[in-house]
Amino acid sequence: MLIVKKFGGSSVANKDRIFNVAKRCIEDYRAGHDVVVVLSAMGDTTDELIALANTINPDAKKRELDMLLTTGEQVSVSLMAMAMQALDVPAVSLNAFQVMMHSTSRYGNARFKRVDTERIMHELDSRKIVIVTGFQGVNKYDDITTLGRGGSDTTAVALAAVLHADKCEIYTDVDGVFTADPRVVKTAKKLDAVTYDEMLELASLGAKVLHNRSVEMAKKYNVELVVRSSLNRSEGTVVKEGSNMEKLLVTGVAADKDTVRISVIGLEDKPGTAFAVFNTLAANNINVDIILQSVGREGTKDISFTVASEDLQHAIEVLNANKERLTIQDITWNEKVAKLSIVGAGMMSNPGVAAKMFESLYNSRVNINMISTSEIRITVLIPEEDIEKAMNAVHDGFGLGA
Amino acid sequence: MLIVKKFGGSSVANKDRIFNVAKRCIEDYRAGHDVVVVLSAMGDTTDELIALANTINPDAKKRELDMLLTTGEQVSVSLMAMAMQALDVPAVSLNAFQVMMHSTSRYGNARFKRVDTERIMHELDSRKIVIVTGFQGVNKYDDITTLGRGGSDTTAVALAAVLHADKCEIYTDVDGVFTADPRVVKTAKKLDAVTYDEMLELASLGAKVLHNRSVEMAKKYNVELVVRSSLNRSEGTVVKEGSNMEKLLVTGVAADKDTVRISVIGLEDKPGTAFAVFNTLAANNINVDIILQSVGREGTKDISFTVASEDLQHAIEVLNANKERLTIQDITWNEKVAKLSIVGAGMMSNPGVAAKMFESLYNSRVNINMISTSEIRITVLIPEEDIEKAMNAVHDGFGLGA
Repeated sequence: MLIVKKFGGSSVANKDRIFNVAKRCIEDYRAGHDVVVVLSAMGDTTDELIALANTINPDAKKRELDMLLTTGEQVSVSLMAMAMQALDVPAVSLNAFQVMMHSTSRYGNARFKRVDTERIMHELDSRKIVIVTGFQGVNKYDDITTLGRGGSDTTAVALAAVLHADKCEIYTDVDGVFTADPRVVKTAKKLDAVTYDEMLELASLGAKVLHNRSVEMAKKYNVELVVRSSLNRSEGTVVKEGSNMEKLLVTGVAADKDTVRISVIGLEDKPGTAFAVFNTLAANNINVDIILQSVGREGTKDISFTVASEDLQHAIEVLNANKERLTIQDITWNEKVAKLSIVGAGMMSNPGVAAKMFESLYNSRVNINMISTSEIRITVLIPEEDIEKAMNAVHDGFGLGA
Repeated sequence: MLIVKKFGGSSVANKDRIFNVAKRCIEDYRAGHDVVVVLSAMGDTTDELIALANTINPDAKKRELDMLLTTGEQVSVSLMAMAMQALDVPAVSLNAFQVMMHSTSRYGNARFKRVDTERIMHELDSRKIVIVTGFQGVNKYDDITTLGRGGSDTTAVALAAVLHADKCEIYTDVDGVFTADPRVVKTAKKLDAVTYDEMLELASLGAKVLHNRSVEMAKKYNVELVVRSSLNRSEGTVVKEGSNMEKLLVTGVAADKDTVRISVIGLEDKPGTAFAVFNTLAANNINVDIILQSVGREGTKDISFTVASEDLQHAIEVLNANKERLTIQDITWNEKVAKLSIVGAGMMSNPGVAAKMFESLYNSRVNINMISTSEIRITVLIPEEDIEKAMNAVHDGFGLGA
């Protein structure tokens, strides 16, 4: 069996943890399996390197930042190889150049285009554990790129896909994917399995267990993922194609506080005004999430929408700069809001789910500002102060508790 | 003009020094020159990484150690590029993979085989300052190698050679090459120029200004080197072919305390016994320096030789293990010795130099244990406690003082 195992930065943060990971990998190796290990940089290394770069040049070119950051994973993989060698197991570390992880050119946020297998297969054939730097690629200029935060998950999935791995295990510091954040919802239960689509919705809604792009790639190449803890032997959560599993009505509840509602008021009520607003925002790389249009006073219309908190200032600037052209009379915003979502592949065929969610919120006296839905997700915007109460109410309402 | 400038770890140890180096390079760039910069790892990074590796595995494979250590230079070059960009100068950092610095396979002590120029020339053509990682290469397996301590000097010379640079400047924390270590000999004078051969002798005798292999390579490819300070504007010392320069009788005085004398006593006085001793040592990778053979008691012979201090224990073990076969009756050693050398290209045609040296030592009551000479060097082994007195005496004797 060929197993790809990915460990995050906290799993390799110090000597003891490095040896802990080494031993776990060696168990599989000694059982006769081929083992490929993908590692992130140790502990807070990436943040420390970013801070170092900022002292030199806060506007450093992303190419140079990638050149700097990728040293972090190279340190972890070489130390891991040394640890395995200390345990008398042949191991070899490889960086993105050595594997040839071809990526797009975009520094800081590259995507894999093609991953060569020759070197890894050669090392596996000589019965070595192969340890690969996560998070990094090489573009067509032979320059080093990074995949953006959490990119090591994507490295693991990409390798699992091209190597036709039998398993791709993503190790983290939680036991798997939960019905809700266990720190907020005490009755939250670990899920045995979720579909790719559910995982995608959960990931994009604030469940920080898996990097979103890695799930997209796993879905595309049908790589079965297991999310599990590096700290214990818990079985974890399997992420796989939905057709193979019992479809739960609702799989999980997720919350996202990093959102803000913006309202543009008094737009001319004629075709194209809404389009012009969102077109202007998109041209400035501002992603808009939930949208609500309502009738305003005296033949005008109002539009409310949410953006990520970090985009608020930029969005306001852009809207102000185009106020006249967009026929906006006034701009208001509210930062004290949060998104609450329920996700479940079974939702598609069950029309009563939304009503059930709204009932739970009503019973807890939580006011709903906006609503947005997808095939397997319902999201509501509520006051930020109510988010924990609301999460618990909805979690209980659907009987997700352990 | 194409200029290669190499800066050591202490020159890039912190933010201020990085900007200091950046500004010096930018001066040449703004004057219209093409500038290639070679950097070592920041400050004590290499030592810290070695210490880190030792906590994981003191017997780590050198391949993995090289993978680890080479991150140090990658950090310096990316930070330097950021610093130059902060000063509004286009700059790009390149590692050994990106330049393609082909080396032999020997990890920890590789040598360059071939260095590609295409990428560097391309970046220079687009008027960028090119910053290259020193100390590292890539072998035929696509694995990262290091050149051994001080290898960044060699990187600079190799690049100067293949790029046909007009200048190769080696920046250090001293003003250049001196007639003797200025910390020991107060009257020591900076030399304006030395020949490659003189520099080689001085380097191998303890003058730690230049990596020996870099001087060999500079000689082979006729790369004119300038050794100068990164801390001031002093002109430095030119290292070049001897034919172009006035030959000084004696160029400099060097001392080396890291030496120990070993004596093997009572060998059978027949052909081949000395050969057997040195053959055995060589087979165990122990380099022998000065050798002295003398007649022992009762038809036997004694042989004394010097080895580096770090090899003492190993040498004694090897000799003891082969005592019978080598017909050794007794082994003694003395760690309290030091080598004193004078070097000068003019020595070859001046037979009185040795006598002058011995006279200076005699006048200072310094006892000579052993003597060794080359065409441009005379070395004596003396008691370690006399080394500073002896250096000053010889330095004065040849009138080398400022």
